[in-house]
Amino acid sequence: MSGFGEATAVKRIGDGRYEAVLDGDYGFAEALNGGYLMAVLGRAAVDASPHAHPVSTATNFHRVAKPGPAQVLVDPRKEGRTAASALVTLVQDDRAVVDALITTGTLDAAAEPAYAGPAPTPVPPVEECTDFRPPTGEGFADKVDMRFDRTTMGWLDGQPSGSPEIRAWFRHGDGYPVDAYSLALAVDALPPVALNLGAQGWAPTVELTWHMRAVPAPGWLAVHGTGRLLAGGWFDEEVEVWDTAGRLVAQSRQIARVPRTRT
Amino acid sequence: MSGFGEATAVKRIGDGRYEAVLDGDYGFAEALNGGYLMAVLGRAAVDASPHAHPVSTATNFHRVAKPGPAQVLVDPRKEGRTAASALVTLVQDDRAVVDALITTGTLDAAAEPAYAGPAPTPVPPVEECTDFRPPTGEGFADKVDMRFDRTTMGWLDGQPSGSPEIRAWFRHGDGYPVDAYSLALAVDALPPVALNLGAQGWAPTVELTWHMRAVPAPGWLAVHGTGRLLAGGWFDEEVEVWDTAGRLVAQSRQIARVPRTRT
Repeated sequence: MSGFGEATAVKRIGDGRYEAVLDGDYGFAEALNGGYLMAVLGRAAVDASPHAHPVSTATNFHRVAKPGPAQVLVDPRKEGRTAASALVTLVQDDRAVVDALITTGTLDAAAEPAYAGPAPTPVPPVEECTDFRPPTGEGFADKVDMRFDRTTMGWLDGQPSGSPEIRAWFRHGDGYPVDAYSLALAVDALPPVALNLGAQGWAPTVELTWHMRAVPAPGWLAVHGTGRLLAGGWFDEEVEVWDTAGRLVAQSRQIARVPRTRT
Repeated sequence: MSGFGEATAVKRIGDGRYEAVLDGDYGFAEALNGGYLMAVLGRAAVDASPHAHPVSTATNFHRVAKPGPAQVLVDPRKEGRTAASALVTLVQDDRAVVDALITTGTLDAAAEPAYAGPAPTPVPPVEECTDFRPPTGEGFADKVDMRFDRTTMGWLDGQPSGSPEIRAWFRHGDGYPVDAYSLALAVDALPPVALNLGAQGWAPTVELTWHMRAVPAPGWLAVHGTGRLLAGGWFDEEVEVWDTAGRLVAQSRQIARVPRTRT
């Protein structure tokens, strides 16, 4: 393992107890990225489980996680033949920073869908997209390689589209091949789609649930972000992740606080 | 309170400890309904919180809940000015039956949406829908008054539509006015939408997350169930609940095991 693999590694130090060293590059000034934290929690959950994949991850973000040492506690709640469930908690300074109910299972990489709904609006070809990275890429913008559909990024120029959609291609900046833990990162890697509704500034995620639906094929992931309702300062954001084989590999919904909306 | 209110009541017996008596009529032969259990957990979460509404509820269903006495344990994880979060557990026979991460907040009943996405396919007028209730209604079919869009119920006659959609009107059978806890029931009251894909039999919910988005207006609730992917025995189901004022009042996604699909 290297890069993303090392940055999300957990070391078992006891029954249901793990240590991690959180990498500050997977974040912005304010906080470490929630998807990155879910990847760390997912690794601990799978390590403590007889199953191979984090099929369902329901997460509450309580506090800002800081770079550096952290503990991950895995409290098994149910173990079954096809699925196991645990409460997984990220702890720093003796306080719960993130709680997640994680259900592990083992997905069959060769499974063909019995039913698949329609694909979302396609992301334009990679070469027609823009990375919006500063010339001296660093931090999160260097750890992930994202290419955005320009039509969904008008908010960057003070021209929000009015439609809560952002689409982009995603892969790791360090060449790490996409896997289950990449999906945790991908579902929380987009800028808040509410930016296209005129929302301003930081939109802290309160709760995010994501489901892994298939083992991703190698290559770019297409990430589709949308939203349904912005009211009373609460906003939902849905993300679907599709792989190069044209399969839905992850789906998420989060609810976030949107402090201010420009009207 | 009466009817649904009594059936979901919790009694505080200590710090973060509640007693409930689960009503077997809110279930089928196999198990109590998951939405009913989430309503019970939501009441305990709100009672233990400074806030008024269960804004976000992320639930893992571990075991079948039985009618009769149960304990509800509320473990506060974070308390903030606009939201508080707790791990809420339903316990029977000293075992965790259901775990939920519940975030409480206080929604403003007068809040106007800053953005609202398009409404889903409408449910036909109530008088054109069918209740499908046995002449001697009892149990769940008596506790809820549901009127189904007949075009989405072909699976009942062995003619699944091939499209994972079920639409219905919802209200309580006992006249209880719809509130936050009704929404918990409504998001898990439809038959599994995978029945329209030829799925057979019981589809146990593994995880269900729902968000309360507005205080519902009095009257019928329109319940819209859909799904995206059935693969490897896992199926997602999304439900939106809209009130008579034309507002999105709740949204959910669950992931369930689908044991068999007729091909």
